[in-house]
Amino acid sequence: MPTKHINLDHGSGGTASHRLITGLFLPAFDNPILRKLDDSAQLTIGSTRIAFSTDTFIVHPFFFPGGNIGDLAINGTVNDIAMSGAKPLYLSVGLIIEEGFTLNSLELILNSMKTAAKKANVQIVTGDTKVMPSKALDGIAINTSGLGIIDSNCHISASFAQAGDKILISGTIADHGITVLTQRENLQIEGDIQSDTAPLNDLVLNLISKCPDIHVLRDPTRGGITAALNEIASQSRVEIEILEDAVPIRPQVAACCELLGLDPFSIANEGKLIAFVPESSVERALSLMKQHPMAKDAAVIGSVISDSKPLVYVKTSIGGRRLLHMPVGDQMPRIC
Amino acid sequence: MPTKHINLDHGSGGTASHRLITGLFLPAFDNPILRKLDDSAQLTIGSTRIAFSTDTFIVHPFFFPGGNIGDLAINGTVNDIAMSGAKPLYLSVGLIIEEGFTLNSLELILNSMKTAAKKANVQIVTGDTKVMPSKALDGIAINTSGLGIIDSNCHISASFAQAGDKILISGTIADHGITVLTQRENLQIEGDIQSDTAPLNDLVLNLISKCPDIHVLRDPTRGGITAALNEIASQSRVEIEILEDAVPIRPQVAACCELLGLDPFSIANEGKLIAFVPESSVERALSLMKQHPMAKDAAVIGSVISDSKPLVYVKTSIGGRRLLHMPVGDQMPRIC
Repeated sequence: MPTKHINLDHGSGGTASHRLITGLFLPAFDNPILRKLDDSAQLTIGSTRIAFSTDTFIVHPFFFPGGNIGDLAINGTVNDIAMSGAKPLYLSVGLIIEEGFTLNSLELILNSMKTAAKKANVQIVTGDTKVMPSKALDGIAINTSGLGIIDSNCHISASFAQAGDKILISGTIADHGITVLTQRENLQIEGDIQSDTAPLNDLVLNLISKCPDIHVLRDPTRGGITAALNEIASQSRVEIEILEDAVPIRPQVAACCELLGLDPFSIANEGKLIAFVPESSVERALSLMKQHPMAKDAAVIGSVISDSKPLVYVKTSIGGRRLLHMPVGDQMPRIC
Repeated sequence: MPTKHINLDHGSGGTASHRLITGLFLPAFDNPILRKLDDSAQLTIGSTRIAFSTDTFIVHPFFFPGGNIGDLAINGTVNDIAMSGAKPLYLSVGLIIEEGFTLNSLELILNSMKTAAKKANVQIVTGDTKVMPSKALDGIAINTSGLGIIDSNCHISASFAQAGDKILISGTIADHGITVLTQRENLQIEGDIQSDTAPLNDLVLNLISKCPDIHVLRDPTRGGITAALNEIASQSRVEIEILEDAVPIRPQVAACCELLGLDPFSIANEGKLIAFVPESSVERALSLMKQHPMAKDAAVIGSVISDSKPLVYVKTSIGGRRLLHMPVGDQMPRIC
């Protein structure tokens, strides 16, 4: 650890986060389930396969176009569970609220959680609320943890990418991160930009039922597709190549990134997934995605070119090829 | 809701917390599992009965005699799961850390979590870390959620108290709350006071294996035994009578409460349980407790006198009888 204090980079989902995980958390808590570092832990209790996941949400502002911290917290954990091919069933909600937070805002957030849970077809079955004195917390933070059931035939993990796999994304990138950032900085943007926060479990169950040979699913949240692809490359030890021009992005989001000097590949998404499928299934998977309301802008964005070294390359529009490194630190704190 | 803002009372575990739960959370998230309001949700997934619980820890100071926020977070969720008679198996850890928090403190906390998890025989299988900018959070907050397996023959719930039940406590009360408070206020106390934070799952499994007719188990954390007994009275709709002199308390803790004008019945415990057992089993249960290292000061402290109204009485040492009301608000914020 080159630093003796926690800094914002440690929460970025990039290399500083990974140093914290591999330098402190894994040595402390090490076990074969945790070591897989999937979006959710895959457990077997009795004869039942269960996906178990946790996520804490500290996004600021709490309300933004397209959603708020409440539905974000439900969708985030629903998606982490779904990425193991599980059907999410039950969630817990752990609230920390600052003294002085308005009951009106709390009610709006809880109602969004209710609506999001209903949409994702999950039940909130247990909860906890703590209150921090004024100024000990900026507003509200929400932890959601959850359980899903994994079919006995389903085997999806960030460790299962293989040479020859095609890589799909379910839609446009960077919508969530850019929306929150522009709201926070009060930037006036031309055109409609809003968070993509959405539950992906219906899309996933649809995909795996008709395309059971999917190898990897991951939702590219903190650190964007850059972090997600680097994690998969590292966990599967494969070399990935992405075609820059194939990655869908809304023009106004791309313009915003250009203006702010931000790399859209490293910006958070909250309603998108990346899927790795064998070449023989790519047409079916793409067509299934495009027929689903959550993935009509789906696209094939690259492939696994070898199972040699854990590297991610981008082929640029002018024919160049560059390494897509894991983001080091945090472009934007409190994005989710 | 008489107030339009969250205040510290809403996090107390007392009547303000309950108003928040029944006024906002239950209407938003209502379902039969949540409605039971046990320490953990009891689920059936496949053919497996599972206890699922969540708790967030914001205790301040982070380190105190007898423990720190790390082992407190492990023991707290282990105990919530154990109170349904479940064997805790797997935990998640969700950290929120303030920028600038020292890695040294974080390492001490994680090592305590590791030791506590080992002692409770649970695995930490998934986690999440967020970092808040300096001053957006005072230090660190830890959410733990967890899963346990419930034996098919085990039926324990705060709704199952019956007239005639005897009430046992596993040891002295108020140790945790008074320890944290005296540390925070820098009070010099004669004698050794320390938090009772400890995992109760081994005690519980021992009890229920040899005394399978236990009706209720609950760990009296926030709001102390006052809140726990009132919750049980309310959920089971029974009238409870506690003998004031029968409740074990360390003399130095009692003296501290007297000095500070605090009611020890309303002060948090983090390694104690209350058990409701039929009269025919009380001797066996008491003897089992006294033989266990976590419960050598166990005592019978009262009984369920009727299944009429949800009320809790205390019989005082001078022969009086008074109602033990649910605490309204918070004697002490950030106690757990």
